[in-house]
Order: sequence, then C-alpha cells, then structure tokens
Amino acid sequence: MKLLRKVADEFGMGVVTEVVDSGDIELIESYADILQVGARNMQNFQMLKALGKSKKPIMLKRGLSATISEWLNAAEYILNEGNEQVIFCERGIRTYETFTRNTFDLSAVAAIKELSHLPIVADPSHGTGRRSMVAPMSRPAIAAGADGLIIEVHPHPEIAKSDGNQSLTPESFDELTKSLSAIANAVGRKI
Amino acid sequence: MKLLRKVADEFGMGVVTEVVDSGDIELIESYADILQVGARNMQNFQMLKALGKSKKPIMLKRGLSATISEWLNAAEYILNEGNEQVIFCERGIRTYETFTRNTFDLSAVAAIKELSHLPIVADPSHGTGRRSMVAPMSRPAIAAGADGLIIEVHPHPEIAKSDGNQSLTPESFDELTKSLSAIANAVGRKI
Amino acid sequence: MKLLRKVADEFGMGVVTEVVDSGDIELIESYADILQVGARNMQNFQMLKALGKSKKPIMLKRGLSATISEWLNAAEYILNEGNEQVIFCERGIRTYETFTRNTFDLSAVAAIKELSHLPIVADPSHGTGRRSMVAPMSRPAIAAGADGLIIEVHPHPEIAKSDGNQSLTPESFDELTKSLSAIANAVGRKI
Amino acid sequence: MKLLRKVADEFGMGVVTEVVDSGDIELIESYADILQVGARNMQNFQMLKALGKSKKPIMLKRGLSATISEWLNAAEYILNEGNEQVIFCERGIRTYETFTRNTFDLSAVAAIKELSHLPIVADPSHGTGRRSMVAPMSRPAIAAGADGLIIEVHPHPEIAKSDGNQSLTPESFDELTKSLSAIANAVGRKI
Repeated sequence: MKLLRKVADEFGMGVVTEVVDSGDIELIESYADILQVGARNMQNFQMLKALGKSKKPIMLKRGLSATISEWLNAAEYILNEGNEQVIFCERGIRTYETFTRNTFDLSAVAAIKELSHLPIVADPSHGTGRRSMVAPMSRPAIAAGADGLIIEVHPHPEIAKSDGNQSLTPESFDELTKSLSAIANAVGRKI
Repeated sequence: MKLLRKVADEFGMGVVTEVVDSGDIELIESYADILQVGARNMQNFQMLKALGKSKKPIMLKRGLSATISEWLNAAEYILNEGNEQVIFCERGIRTYETFTRNTFDLSAVAAIKELSHLPIVADPSHGTGRRSMVAPMSRPAIAAGADGLIIEVHPHPEIAKSDGNQSLTPESFDELTKSLSAIANAVGRKI
Repeated sequence: MKLLRKVADEFGMGVVTEVVDSGDIELIESYADILQVGARNMQNFQMLKALGKSKKPIMLKRGLSATISEWLNAAEYILNEGNEQVIFCERGIRTYETFTRNTFDLSAVAAIKELSHLPIVADPSHGTGRRSMVAPMSRPAIAAGADGLIIEVHPHPEIAKSDGNQSLTPESFDELTKSLSAIANAVGRKI
Repeated sequence: MKLLRKVADEFGMGVVTEVVDSGDIELIESYADILQVGARNMQNFQMLKALGKSKKPIMLKRGLSATISEWLNAAEYILNEGNEQVIFCERGIRTYETFTRNTFDLSAVAAIKELSHLPIVADPSHGTGRRSMVAPMSRPAIAAGADGLIIEVHPHPEIAKSDGNQSLTPESFDELTKSLSAIANAVGRKI
C-alpha cells in the first residue's frame, strides 16, 4: 500500500481503494484518497456507519440488485455520521440479459441527479463487461449527467491479471477522451 | 383511420400504427407509413412472418423481458420473408426497479449497433414512464447511437387520454430538440 | 392433426394443442380437447378475445415475465367473452438465475389459489429445464396446490426431437407418480 | 444478549443471532447457538472467512439476487477456514413480481440438495412477506426437500415490532405443524 501511494505521488495520480471490512478503514484511510464501497457491501450497514466517521470521500458502488431508493438510503448511513463526501457509482445491475455482464443503468444516473445533490460517476467497464462497449457507453453516461467515469486501461489487456476483457488500451482511451470532450460541451460541462 | 391519414397528410406527418393481429395487416398497411409491433407481440411469430410479406417498414419494439438475442431473432422472422425494412425500438425492460416504469436499456442500443446493420430508435417516454426523465434520457439515447427517438407530446399532459405522465408539452419538446442537436453533432450525426 | 386426434382416441388420451394465431382457432378447436396459449402469447389480447368465444377449455401459460396480476388480467380477456373454462399454467419466469432455464415460481400457484377460483397446473419440465429437477419440483408443486402437472416423457430422451433435456423416461415417470400420490393425500387431494 | 440466552435456556429453546460485522463474532458466539449471515452480507467475504474460524454453526441466507453458484461459493469461504457446519437458508430472491415481497425460490432448495451435502432450511415468512402465504408455501418447501423452516410467530402480529405482516399466530402455527407432518411423511422424513 505504501508502494501504491508512492507510485501515485510520483505520477500525480489519486488512489481509490476498496474497503471490505470495518477493521481495515484506519489503515486504508492513511494512504488512499478515496475509500470505495463495493457493490457486494452496499448494504453492509456497520461498515457504512464506520465510514461515516472518516474524513475521506467515500465512493459508494450500487449493489448488484439495489433499487435507487436503497442506494440513497445506504448513502444516508454514511452522511448521518457526519461524512458528507459521498460519491455514487453506477456499475450495472443484475438482470436476465446475458450479452452484457450487467445491465448498465443510465436512468439511475439521471434519477440520482434528480433526487440528490451528491455527485455520481459511472463505470461502463464493469457495467457492460465488454471492451467493445466501454466507449459506446461512456458517451451516453456523460450525456446522462455523470460527473465522472471509471474506465479500466491496460497496455496489454490480453495479459491483464483482472478484468482484461473490459480494459481499453491507452490508445483507445485517448481517442475516447476526445469524443467525450465534445459530448461534455454539448451538455454544458467541461472535461 | 382514414381521418388519421388525412390529418397526417394535411400536416405533412407520418403515421405509425400498431398491428395486434395478422388479420389487420392489410387494412393498416393501406393507410400507415410504418407498422409497429408492440412489446407484447415481439414473439408473436405468426404475425412477424405475415409482416415479412408487407412492403411497409416494421418497427419492432423490444419485448418486456426479451434478450438482445431474442430480439434479433424476432427480426429474422420478418427479414426472412423478404421485408428488409426493420427498425428496432428500445422501450425499456422489466427489472426489479420501481422508480422508473421500466429500465431503459441504452446498452441494448449500443449492442444492436454492434451486432446489426438495422436502424434502432429509442423510446424514453415508455422506457422511463416519468416526464421528468424523458429529456435527461433522450440525450444519452442519441449519444448511444440511437437513429431516432419516440417522444410523447401533448399540449395538456394532465388531461391526456393515455400516457400523460410521460408526455412533454410542446414547449419542453422544443427545448429538448435544441439540446439534442448539440449531442448529435458531438457524435458526428445531424438532426 | 387428424392423425394426432386418431392416436389420442385409440389410446384414450386427450389432445392439448397450442394456438399461435387467431386464424387457426377454428381448425384446432375441431380436433383438440384443450387449446393452449403459450407464454409468448399471454398478452396477445386479440387472440385471447377470440379464444373467449371458443367452447373448448383454454390453458393459459404464464408469460416469461408476467406478473400475477397481468396473468389474471389476461384470463379476464377470455372470461369476458363468455368462455369460463380457463386453466392457468405456471411454467417458470425469467430471472437472473442460470442454473435452471427459468425460475419455477410455486408461490404463483399459491397466489392464484388465493386470488382466483380457476384451476392451475404446473409445468416443472419447462419450469426448470433440467431432467434431474422435474421429480423434485413436481412434489412441491402438488403440495403448493397445483391441480395438475405437465411432465414431458419420452422413451429415449436423448434422441427426442424437442425438450429431451427435460424429459423423463416412462420408468422414472411411473416412480414419480407413486410419490406424488402420497403428497396429494397429505394435502387432502387424490390423484 | 445475556437475557436472550437466559430466556432461551428457561424455555429450552435455541438462539440464532445475525452477525453484521466481523468485530461482533466473538461476543455473539458466546451466547448464540447458531450465527446467521443475512442476505445483505452473503458476499461480505471478510466476515465469511472470520466465521469460518468459529466453532458454531453458520446459517447462510441467500443474497437478494445471488445465483445458486454464488451462494455455494459463499459457503466455501466458511468451509475453507475449517468450519463445516454451514446451513443454507432460502429466503426469496428479487424479481419484478410485486405481489409477494420476494420470489420464494423452491427450485433453489432442490438444486442445493442436488449440488451439495449441506443442509438447507427455507424461510417462507421473508420469502413471501405475506401471512396468508406462509402456510401454503411451507408445505411445498418441505416437499422440495427443505431440512427445516423459519416461521415467524407472534401472539398479536398486528402489534409486532417487526415483520408483523408475515407472522403467524401460535394457533395457526400449530395447525400448520400438523399438516407439515403429513407432507414430511410423504417424502420419507419425520418432523
């Protein structure tokens, strides 16, 4: 973890790390910039309460089959303890469809924008699970109002240790960034 | 129906009408410009085959819980009889979520663009069932590659005989059109 | 179809045939004992109305993702035209689960028993899509109140032209029948 | 908690308590007979590992939208640490249906019996969320092979502090027990 922090500092990047147990919060807080709650822990209420006492921003991934209402309620567990820096993250929900790994639900992005003042980012890599769909779904995510995107990039996706199927190469990531910039302008935002 | 055709001609509009039984095709063909297959009939294979013999374009709405693969197969029933003018229409799928009437699945739009050469339109009115979400989801639909949108408009949505909850007023429709134009340009298309 | 009727008469069996188009009702009525509406046509309302004018019983399969309420409403289309012989058939609903082909929903059987006076049969063959689960799910179906079962049987399931994966052999069907008899007695019914 | 243990001892009952955080295991172990993992924590892998070191049996509720395969895998986290006393508990999955609170999935009971040697109990109270369906679904649960049932009972369900809508009265519970006994016999088991 020290190494992760060191590399991030060297390259001017931020560190987002997933917390999977209340007992690990103190350690992870000491080096990460944002603490992530994974989809499988979205309703781990004890951990959410503990994160509400942290000074670091919390990125709260939507549960695999969480309703929008349950997701907002999960955020309340954090907010209620005094930590107001909650960032939602839409990462796809579980449906009967098998072509994509999950069903990337952009209406949830629009709904969160309507129902809450908190920021929301979208994760088309996990949301679709298919490299070919990451760019095509990044553009609508921004058009739907997402405040950010999580996109997995790997110089050689075919040998990636995890999630290679949904990773872009640095080149395709660069191209995507350009087209996103035009969309962002079209909806009155800037990248 | 004669009246519908007459009004359409007077105002230079097209007529899209739903077919709900094979026996009605001949009549509807005689006055409509596009024949629509509703979500509940997407797998009414006898009717699809009969529509495959029509000379008019067919708009094939996605079934309430149809997979992308089943939807493509349904189109094959029409194409196979010689009618190559099939237009897909994404109108939301059935999930556990209750905030929206359906879950408007824009990754299906991107998937159809990847898997087929046929055009696809998106229906954010039925897809979300909430007036407040029609505009916010129209923009991402275009960004996802939709070739058209179906948007319900009514001068007085509160007294509409059907689907008033999801209808825009002419004024809000005008505003939406402008913002869609910017998105379309951003993805290299024109409205 | 004449042949089907002839074979049925010779062996003292009944004939249940699926209707897939309003135009076929007259013909099928003339030889079948029960007309079946398949899951894909549960909301083919024109056909349901036409079946409401038939004198034959109608077996109404539940749509792939039909709610119990929609299913009851579909029956109303038939009842409303004067045909009161409607038999519901639970055949599994579409969920995210992939181990079984569908999710065989026995609470729908109990719900129909609570909400309606009409009979309901259960189809564990389609409901599970796995031969090994047909017998294990037939017993609970009877315990849940099902008035009948649809079980596919084939002397050589491995060469069956359709649905071999979910078919029992005559021997395993015989065994099952015995164990069902005990369950039926336990819930105060007889086979 | 001391009180809970005391009352249980006085009436010769067992205590099953839910664990919601790894940090609470030691305390709960000291007075409960069985530790329960709730649906929302089925994939709280750190907690599962910690429970694998406990000497007490673990009742592992199925996640709200967990596949059978994910459920078996969750059990492996516990088993792998040396605790072989895992009891599965089917409590309904999340689907589009709204008549019942969840869709009580009895084919999962049959599937677990096919795929695992571990016991499984069924929870028709949470599985359906409707008092009127608890008895009708308890019988099929036993017929499907469930090794036990969780049934909420309250002398005055209308004033229950939690889950009153799905609680039986002691009288209706007694009646149910008798009818379950007949079903159990019919499938070669005893209550």
